[in-house]
Amino acid sequence: MTKDIIETCELLTCGTEILMGQIVNTNATFLARQLTLLGINSLYQTTVGDNPIRLENAIRTALGRSDSVIITGGLGPTEDDISMAVAARVANRPLERHEPSVKAIQGYFASLNRETAEINYKQAMMPVGAHVIPNNNGTAPGAIVPVQGPHRTQYIILLPGPPLENQLMFEDEVKPFFEAHSDAKFDTTFIRMIGVGESNAATLLADLIDKQINPTIAPYSSEGEVAFRLTERLVHGEEGKGVEPLIAEIKSRLGKYIYEIGDRSLPEVLKDLLSERGLTIAFAESCTAGLVAATFGDIPGVSTVFKGGVVSYANDVKADILQVPQTILDDHGAVSEETAIAMAEGCRQVTGADLAVSITGVAGPDGGTEEKPVGLVYIGLADASGSYARKFHFLGNRNKVRKIAALNAFNMARVRLLNQ
Amino acid sequence: MTKDIIETCELLTCGTEILMGQIVNTNATFLARQLTLLGINSLYQTTVGDNPIRLENAIRTALGRSDSVIITGGLGPTEDDISMAVAARVANRPLERHEPSVKAIQGYFASLNRETAEINYKQAMMPVGAHVIPNNNGTAPGAIVPVQGPHRTQYIILLPGPPLENQLMFEDEVKPFFEAHSDAKFDTTFIRMIGVGESNAATLLADLIDKQINPTIAPYSSEGEVAFRLTERLVHGEEGKGVEPLIAEIKSRLGKYIYEIGDRSLPEVLKDLLSERGLTIAFAESCTAGLVAATFGDIPGVSTVFKGGVVSYANDVKADILQVPQTILDDHGAVSEETAIAMAEGCRQVTGADLAVSITGVAGPDGGTEEKPVGLVYIGLADASGSYARKFHFLGNRNKVRKIAALNAFNMARVRLLNQ
Repeated sequence: MTKDIIETCELLTCGTEILMGQIVNTNATFLARQLTLLGINSLYQTTVGDNPIRLENAIRTALGRSDSVIITGGLGPTEDDISMAVAARVANRPLERHEPSVKAIQGYFASLNRETAEINYKQAMMPVGAHVIPNNNGTAPGAIVPVQGPHRTQYIILLPGPPLENQLMFEDEVKPFFEAHSDAKFDTTFIRMIGVGESNAATLLADLIDKQINPTIAPYSSEGEVAFRLTERLVHGEEGKGVEPLIAEIKSRLGKYIYEIGDRSLPEVLKDLLSERGLTIAFAESCTAGLVAATFGDIPGVSTVFKGGVVSYANDVKADILQVPQTILDDHGAVSEETAIAMAEGCRQVTGADLAVSITGVAGPDGGTEEKPVGLVYIGLADASGSYARKFHFLGNRNKVRKIAALNAFNMARVRLLNQ
Repeated sequence: MTKDIIETCELLTCGTEILMGQIVNTNATFLARQLTLLGINSLYQTTVGDNPIRLENAIRTALGRSDSVIITGGLGPTEDDISMAVAARVANRPLERHEPSVKAIQGYFASLNRETAEINYKQAMMPVGAHVIPNNNGTAPGAIVPVQGPHRTQYIILLPGPPLENQLMFEDEVKPFFEAHSDAKFDTTFIRMIGVGESNAATLLADLIDKQINPTIAPYSSEGEVAFRLTERLVHGEEGKGVEPLIAEIKSRLGKYIYEIGDRSLPEVLKDLLSERGLTIAFAESCTAGLVAATFGDIPGVSTVFKGGVVSYANDVKADILQVPQTILDDHGAVSEETAIAMAEGCRQVTGADLAVSITGVAGPDGGTEEKPVGLVYIGLADASGSYARKFHFLGNRNKVRKIAALNAFNMARVRLLNQ
């Protein structure tokens, strides 16, 4: 007996809210990531509305090019919810009342002290021969529905739309199902950089990007940062050659820009560096107006290294709280190297942090001059051994200038800690 | 000469990162929302990877069922970036070097004091006869590429993947393009509320949601806020009956929750109120760690009303900068009504702002106790006439608790100003 190997799975979302842009399709992101980790190729994602013809066509198209398809959404009790019925039709398996699901639905409502509404029994109608996936957090069971072809079996997997139910049911039943039908897995490693442009970095790695087969290397960029993704496909039972030689080669070419080989973001790297050294940090922000502190404060468990900071948007706050001398503000202006240094020093003093980073600049859209244009940003740093500032000129609109300034503030602190 | 009317547009995303679940497809959400507002039906969303055959098939499939398709992503300088070349092939229009884009790319790098890398010139290769969309925030121009059929013209619209570039270029060039190819105009008005749940509000408006045909009313929610979208379809040259009677009816039912009839966000409404009254504001933040200040500072031109604030993540910053008495911290804890009030008072004093708002709470995931659970937040307010605090219990994860706390901080200040 040969096992059906599932090498490909595509994602099909059924939801008018997504087509109208009212909700973000985070289920697709979750499922795509899970499939990647399972080593399953997912080459298409499709979203259609609550329309039986379009949904049926989409399922048939998916099964025409992939071994399996996961349908998310359309399992509710209303007339709009058609996914299970359409999947049953494609699989040529009539719906039948699934008694364990009937009991589960009744139990769910009983636990809420509610009567089970008649329409909810529709959710217990399952294709004959399907593997039913119980839902412990809602009324809609899912299913793994075999589609029997002349030469092989394909699978339609149905999961509900609410993200929590979707994720838990995937982990409980769909993941083990895929693992049982797989012969390989993918290992993915990220190399993250700052201070180099994506195209420059890609040019320097062009030969590797072109020639590498397993592991592969591909660019992966987000605003103000550059990353490369290394992916190795490992057949079960075989040892891969690993990504280490490739990482070493990339390091030899772009090492000075690399801040992380792994999954941590730049502020997470900084947070871990501070933790290791038992140091605390604070931020004094003008043009970023709290963005640096808020981003840093977003990391769970940051409180041991994070003192807080001052948002000195107005000049009198720079003078009164951060003790920036009025003469510096008068002589050099709020956006200057001198002010950045004084802000960092003052911030360190008033917060008691070991390390203070300051940001002052012209984020735009207004306020730019020929001498101090939009995008001009000074980032200052003060610690026990002294203080200094660096001048930057970032391109983009207000939002982008602020985001990139924030990243560079984290990076200056990171570099400072490493060089100590 | 008849104009081609575009009634349908589908969304096609080109990005292996999305297929692998590394990034969330927020561009699709943005574009879907925009198309809805323009009255254009969007029945399919598809994502494929950086593969020319699959991308070409996806474009041809889209044009087989929709008047137009927007392709997002795949416009970068690397070899993986194939969207423009594939679109050119489908449209049967060879690529040619587009000199204004060459100049723009050179200008972009010159402003960064960098050399233009050879591979970046690839981004200036445009299909003959395409309308090129300049990119003011990156190197990849977009394009509107006509696909000439025997009976009509269809359109492939290409936009870059970075969300900021995608959005600005859509607004600058694609939106006016769709408006010019429409036979009706959709007037959309948003009614924005805070302090009421979405299902409660929808229940109170259920008869209007069901019966209204033109204008229509539909719920339109985002985290922590509730909004309804009123849409009137106006055939060119005809006068509509307007949305005023419907607005009056909604006001009579839910007036006390409405903070805006229009496009302004809650912080923008607050900023305008402060401007009108010539008052300034500052924020003292603990669990939100700068999010409130950063959100407020995000509004262009906010400097006349915004002093700044203090991020008092650590208790000693609450004591040292905000002058919260140590006895209050010892007796009531950092998350307490008393601390919130003292933080607001201290913040008002040190920043010199007319109005100060403080936030202290347990954002989670750790730090919750039976007495002070995750989601418990106190928001304090101090102005010339005194100070007080309100207790909230927000549900959700760390990120959601912080976002909703920020919204309620803005709302408390807004309500305070209105009641003065």
